[in-house]
Amino acid sequence: MIAEQYKDMLGKKSIIRQLSEFATARGAEIGYENVFDFSLGNPSVPPPQKFTDTMMELMQNHDSVGLHGYSQSLGIPAVREKVAESLNRRFGMNYTRNHIFMATGAAGAIAHALRCVTAPGDEVLVFAPFFSEYRAYINLSGAVMKVVPANVEDFQINFEAFEEMLTEKVAAVLINTPNNPSGAVYTAETLQKLADIMSVKADEYGHDIFLISDEPYREIIFEGTKAPYVSKFYPNTISCYSFSKSLSIPGERIGYVAVNPACRDGEYIADMCGQISRGIGHNCPPSIIQLAVAECLDITSDLSVYEANMNILYKELTSLGFECVKPGGTFYIFPKAPLKDATAFCEKAKEYDLILVPSDDFGVPGYFRMAYCIDTEKTVRSLEAIRKMAKNEKYFG
Amino acid sequence: MIAEQYKDMLGKKSIIRQLSEFATARGAEIGYENVFDFSLGNPSVPPPQKFTDTMMELMQNHDSVGLHGYSQSLGIPAVREKVAESLNRRFGMNYTRNHIFMATGAAGAIAHALRCVTAPGDEVLVFAPFFSEYRAYINLSGAVMKVVPANVEDFQINFEAFEEMLTEKVAAVLINTPNNPSGAVYTAETLQKLADIMSVKADEYGHDIFLISDEPYREIIFEGTKAPYVSKFYPNTISCYSFSKSLSIPGERIGYVAVNPACRDGEYIADMCGQISRGIGHNCPPSIIQLAVAECLDITSDLSVYEANMNILYKELTSLGFECVKPGGTFYIFPKAPLKDATAFCEKAKEYDLILVPSDDFGVPGYFRMAYCIDTEKTVRSLEAIRKMAKNEKYFG
Repeated sequence: MIAEQYKDMLGKKSIIRQLSEFATARGAEIGYENVFDFSLGNPSVPPPQKFTDTMMELMQNHDSVGLHGYSQSLGIPAVREKVAESLNRRFGMNYTRNHIFMATGAAGAIAHALRCVTAPGDEVLVFAPFFSEYRAYINLSGAVMKVVPANVEDFQINFEAFEEMLTEKVAAVLINTPNNPSGAVYTAETLQKLADIMSVKADEYGHDIFLISDEPYREIIFEGTKAPYVSKFYPNTISCYSFSKSLSIPGERIGYVAVNPACRDGEYIADMCGQISRGIGHNCPPSIIQLAVAECLDITSDLSVYEANMNILYKELTSLGFECVKPGGTFYIFPKAPLKDATAFCEKAKEYDLILVPSDDFGVPGYFRMAYCIDTEKTVRSLEAIRKMAKNEKYFG
Repeated sequence: MIAEQYKDMLGKKSIIRQLSEFATARGAEIGYENVFDFSLGNPSVPPPQKFTDTMMELMQNHDSVGLHGYSQSLGIPAVREKVAESLNRRFGMNYTRNHIFMATGAAGAIAHALRCVTAPGDEVLVFAPFFSEYRAYINLSGAVMKVVPANVEDFQINFEAFEEMLTEKVAAVLINTPNNPSGAVYTAETLQKLADIMSVKADEYGHDIFLISDEPYREIIFEGTKAPYVSKFYPNTISCYSFSKSLSIPGERIGYVAVNPACRDGEYIADMCGQISRGIGHNCPPSIIQLAVAECLDITSDLSVYEANMNILYKELTSLGFECVKPGGTFYIFPKAPLKDATAFCEKAKEYDLILVPSDDFGVPGYFRMAYCIDTEKTVRSLEAIRKMAKNEKYFG
């Protein structure tokens, strides 16, 4: 018999995927350039030339048997070494290659980290609004996801609710800063308070509580925002990184787990990821991609388009009357919907060829997400549609 | 607390990996060319030129944003289509792209297939000798592995033991032909009998029993051997393929699941793989590698070196007195050790700079595996060491 657990998931197609498919279909009718598709968080800028050059150089000048051969299951040792050095250089950490596990993007990194520090039935806390795929990562690891309600003031942490929910059952806390979908970046104050509470509770309960930090947007930070390195605040931190956004290579599935050297049992965790990868069949990320990103650790794609788009949208939305926390990074903005029912609002937006994602799957009702990883020219053109909708529907009087 | 399940695995380093590390260390002392390293199943021939050319062409001529973008979690639709067409053309099947899930090698394919058709606690039968990583794939899926004892006559199936072990608890049977480590290729007769028994038992128990067919060596078949396409014999078959060996790109992590269209609930299984991949963080195999293999579906590396090496080793081993079933494919040979304790034999072999893998981890005592994916010149040079050992140790009088 086929497994009911997964068969049951089939009906629950991601709303983002559905909206993206709608946008594609609508594009076939009126031209995709006329569909203001803010659905998918897919980078819109090319990878750095250095990435392409390195790939070409590897293909041309390296022994192809070695180049395409198995890497060790933890990743290519020299690549892990370079990742550790880059993090140490940029964030003042003291990783060695033994703290680094090369993973298939942040998704793979989180899936491994969760299995390292939870047993089936343990609770994992996430903070609304949260990336909806966390449900799958956590549920399929055997742990139980609990959602801490949002702090809608500024999308920092609702500490009152957090303290209440941080019970003895909690094995790990999963955070995401800069945040998808809100664009908020946790301040040093937020991270320190989070760390302090977790330390006190861990002592009280007599067991570790791990912090899993999902950081695919770490390099997309806007002017005036500081993005502290999470792992500096709390020793039992496992950082999960992806090159998908910083290098615009989401399809190539590459990222890493970085275990704070001060982490309890830190010396085992990367090795355990290697064992977990044997069981879930990941084995190692693609060898050539590992070698290519190792030459691009301190650079990024030209990410300036995201900040330009954010400023354009933020200005227009707020001047129209939308309530909106100004994003400090990412390529998302998360305004409050002018209707209580965000899904109804996003359905209505389709009539204006605006493809917006309602917030319910992110764990907060009444908001919507716009992924502005699109051309600035198109972002500017979308304003007319937004204005028209606000006016026609009399959202703000 | 870190997860004991995975921490416990840390001590159990693969014997193959240990032997490979020994070979490397010994190579540093006496020159690796003087170490007859038969430990690792790592292809020794380059990928086809077409693969390299396609990768270069993709890097040079395609829009880099699209090229490196996310693929759908089931794989790129056009790639899945081409895989289906290639299988239909070569094996007379009737797959559509809806039956194909692109996976990170056969390891990923098997990990997904197991989760599709088993519930935790269900039994999965494997046949000794078997690829030792099956333990990890099955145990970490939550199912329970049971080993059907070997048919050491010819390494086909021990049907008596199989029938006895095919109880109501069995949800899936995992086979591997051509076989690692024996090199045996299941005959049509074997596959038909296997299918007949499984059909009868499935009817008797009133539930499906799925056949998971692990086929990374499908293209490495020697003269005089016929390798029937497994899925033709039994409708509820999920084929798990890897391009690692046929295209010599094991590090690039690419393969697929092909669900027999006649499979019960076959229309769901590839889709379910997509859901499973969300939870284990695989998401999709690397986009550029998917596109490159799609142009190489009907070709292989020059695999002739494996057959040449097999003939050289088989002739020498049998003439010295080793009992040995002649491989029909793969790049392995699996002779009987001349000592009861295969580990002691392989330890002794190290003194002759012969790196051989004892059979215990493959589920059969008293044999050893040689992976002859090495240069033919070195294979020939290894014969002197084998002869010397056999003579000095008086294995055959």
